[in-house]
Amino acid sequence: MHYPDSFSRITQVMKSSLIRELVASTKNIPDLISFAGGFPSPATFPTQQLAELFEEVIKNGGSDVLQYGASEGDILLKKQLMQWEGYELKPEEMVITVGATNAIYYYARCLINPGDVILCEAPSFLGTLVTFDAIEADCQSVPINDEGIIIEELEEKVKILHQQGKNIKFLYIIPDFHNPAGITYSLQRRKEIIQFCIDNNIPILEDNPYSRLRFYGEPVPTFYQVARTDFAPTNIVTEIVSFSKILGPGLRIAYAKGDKELIEKMVSWQQKVTITPDCVAERAVARFLEKGLMDTHLKYIAEYYRPYLQKMLDELEKQMPPEVQWTKPEGGIFLWLTLPEYINADELFVEASKHKVSFIPGSKFYPEGQEKFNTLRLNFTYSTFEQIEQGIRSLAELLKEKIK
Amino acid sequence: MHYPDSFSRITQVMKSSLIRELVASTKNIPDLISFAGGFPSPATFPTQQLAELFEEVIKNGGSDVLQYGASEGDILLKKQLMQWEGYELKPEEMVITVGATNAIYYYARCLINPGDVILCEAPSFLGTLVTFDAIEADCQSVPINDEGIIIEELEEKVKILHQQGKNIKFLYIIPDFHNPAGITYSLQRRKEIIQFCIDNNIPILEDNPYSRLRFYGEPVPTFYQVARTDFAPTNIVTEIVSFSKILGPGLRIAYAKGDKELIEKMVSWQQKVTITPDCVAERAVARFLEKGLMDTHLKYIAEYYRPYLQKMLDELEKQMPPEVQWTKPEGGIFLWLTLPEYINADELFVEASKHKVSFIPGSKFYPEGQEKFNTLRLNFTYSTFEQIEQGIRSLAELLKEKIK
Repeated sequence: MHYPDSFSRITQVMKSSLIRELVASTKNIPDLISFAGGFPSPATFPTQQLAELFEEVIKNGGSDVLQYGASEGDILLKKQLMQWEGYELKPEEMVITVGATNAIYYYARCLINPGDVILCEAPSFLGTLVTFDAIEADCQSVPINDEGIIIEELEEKVKILHQQGKNIKFLYIIPDFHNPAGITYSLQRRKEIIQFCIDNNIPILEDNPYSRLRFYGEPVPTFYQVARTDFAPTNIVTEIVSFSKILGPGLRIAYAKGDKELIEKMVSWQQKVTITPDCVAERAVARFLEKGLMDTHLKYIAEYYRPYLQKMLDELEKQMPPEVQWTKPEGGIFLWLTLPEYINADELFVEASKHKVSFIPGSKFYPEGQEKFNTLRLNFTYSTFEQIEQGIRSLAELLKEKIK
Repeated sequence: MHYPDSFSRITQVMKSSLIRELVASTKNIPDLISFAGGFPSPATFPTQQLAELFEEVIKNGGSDVLQYGASEGDILLKKQLMQWEGYELKPEEMVITVGATNAIYYYARCLINPGDVILCEAPSFLGTLVTFDAIEADCQSVPINDEGIIIEELEEKVKILHQQGKNIKFLYIIPDFHNPAGITYSLQRRKEIIQFCIDNNIPILEDNPYSRLRFYGEPVPTFYQVARTDFAPTNIVTEIVSFSKILGPGLRIAYAKGDKELIEKMVSWQQKVTITPDCVAERAVARFLEKGLMDTHLKYIAEYYRPYLQKMLDELEKQMPPEVQWTKPEGGIFLWLTLPEYINADELFVEASKHKVSFIPGSKFYPEGQEKFNTLRLNFTYSTFEQIEQGIRSLAELLKEKIK
């Protein structure tokens, strides 16, 4: 039988992640310097400790961790997470999931009927945009500046969408060391957005995989924290935290914190989609936290990544023509370049591949039809110093040729 | 904000697993003998071996297994699975998922538009029925007998549904040691169903968590195998195999085999829902197979469970009044009782709880509105011999009182 004929409507039109295709397209180029990926460096994985903890949790608790777990997540991990977060939180305000995308998927399933609007940043994380597409949401993007979404633009967008009779279901935000833009929301901007969303009854989905990857400066409280302290009582923010960038993506452990009734429905979705997250990995992460290993480990990661960020910032400063601008993050894993408007980064991508350097063109980070083409994303955590120096030089040379 | 007001339509009406609620309702009864669950016995988990393998795969391959994996599943595990299956299979005909429900979910997402029909057995596995509900499928059940779905009933059902202009998308089947009915399809019935489905262009989803749990008799080839050998070339069957009942559900590892184009779309869904299954667990299972541990382990499980199945069959024979009938499976973890038509097992459940014995009423295993009430499911893998003896005696006494 010919399956494509009977695929569901959404399966027929669903897009795959363009990043994977782009990365695949350069796979066979020898000696390619790639700033394209979003992978953490394996040097930051606490391999030895995790190897021992996995062995320990199976040996000492095999009958428990090898058995079916709870759909809401392991209660022992929840206890550790509540302590780690450092503020009062109830187990029923939390669900553990198979990575952050999984939590985002359940959240969106809870709220979205086909055609409903999700407000997102321009640019936003491509992986999430394709997930929202698969749920048949209408993603509408709002421009950001160095401090986050521009409030006036947000107001204007919401006004227009209401005039069009659209149903706005939530605002999707990446608060710290933004993927792809590298920016971090200012405290002031966080407050303004929360106030606006309360006034307009728009829930906020805060996707926070990077805030613990801070190499310089002082942390800013998350939207979730700001809402709790400055706007209590409000349940408007749901925050998603992932261990992918701080322990290892292969573990597939993340969690969401938010309104009890909403979390209950996310759990109900999890029951139908995976039944429960991986119980062995849950317990190993619980033990990692319980043994107090996280603080030291986060300091180690910061020490490890800081020179790479610094190296890339230095090289950009040294090599790039004055017409090119970039964000200067204090952590995370990405930088965002803005080129003169007449340079198309999609075309640059093809030429750069020939010069053995790769990145992700910025156009991939906008909902379809809302693209900007003079931007690109650079990752600095998966290359050597030499590669960063050489890669940025090649890119700068290419750009100098193009700049009039 | 009041979230329930903005829940998506399906989230508002979605059911949770009634089994969990039933089990929860008897949780505080002291000394309850429960035949209700569907959990494997922890005594069958290869705890020591898995503890060592998890340690080994992280220690020796941490930079790999702690990193993002492939959305289609670990290629090393695929290689082992292809060898284990013992017949030619290409990696692109296979996707590894977070347990079997996860594979079933992606399969259904690939094919179902809201309102499309899924044909299932009467009775069928409740967990899957609630998953199909969440995808807004219209589940239509077809009666089974000791050899599987009754062909005449299937023909009749398909005829009526076509007359109603319904879109039949696939047939969902549990081929061996059926949950809940305990039956195994005969080879003849398998062939008849495949022929019927080819003639009517209806794909078959074969959910196969139990076929390796055979304690007596000879294995019957799976629908997938029969289709390949007797009906080649056909891509009509997709088979899902889980490690939950043979290694441990906590690992969350299963896989689907089927048509390449269909598998590709399942992978595309996985990319949007979890990105990738748990890479550490994938590799540990790969090593378990590579080291040749599975055969011995499966023999051990069969040895371990056989006396419990035998004990329950013996006690039923000894205690039950002649009006009660039950299936006599050669493996798996469940038995299915049929009571006289005038006895309602939902009511019996409440009374039995008071007599400190529990089971799942059969009505829970049918799509809504298609229930039968004079049946019940018994699990024999989670009780001691004494509990089986005492529990079946209590149940038999209750039934004797009710039988006129």
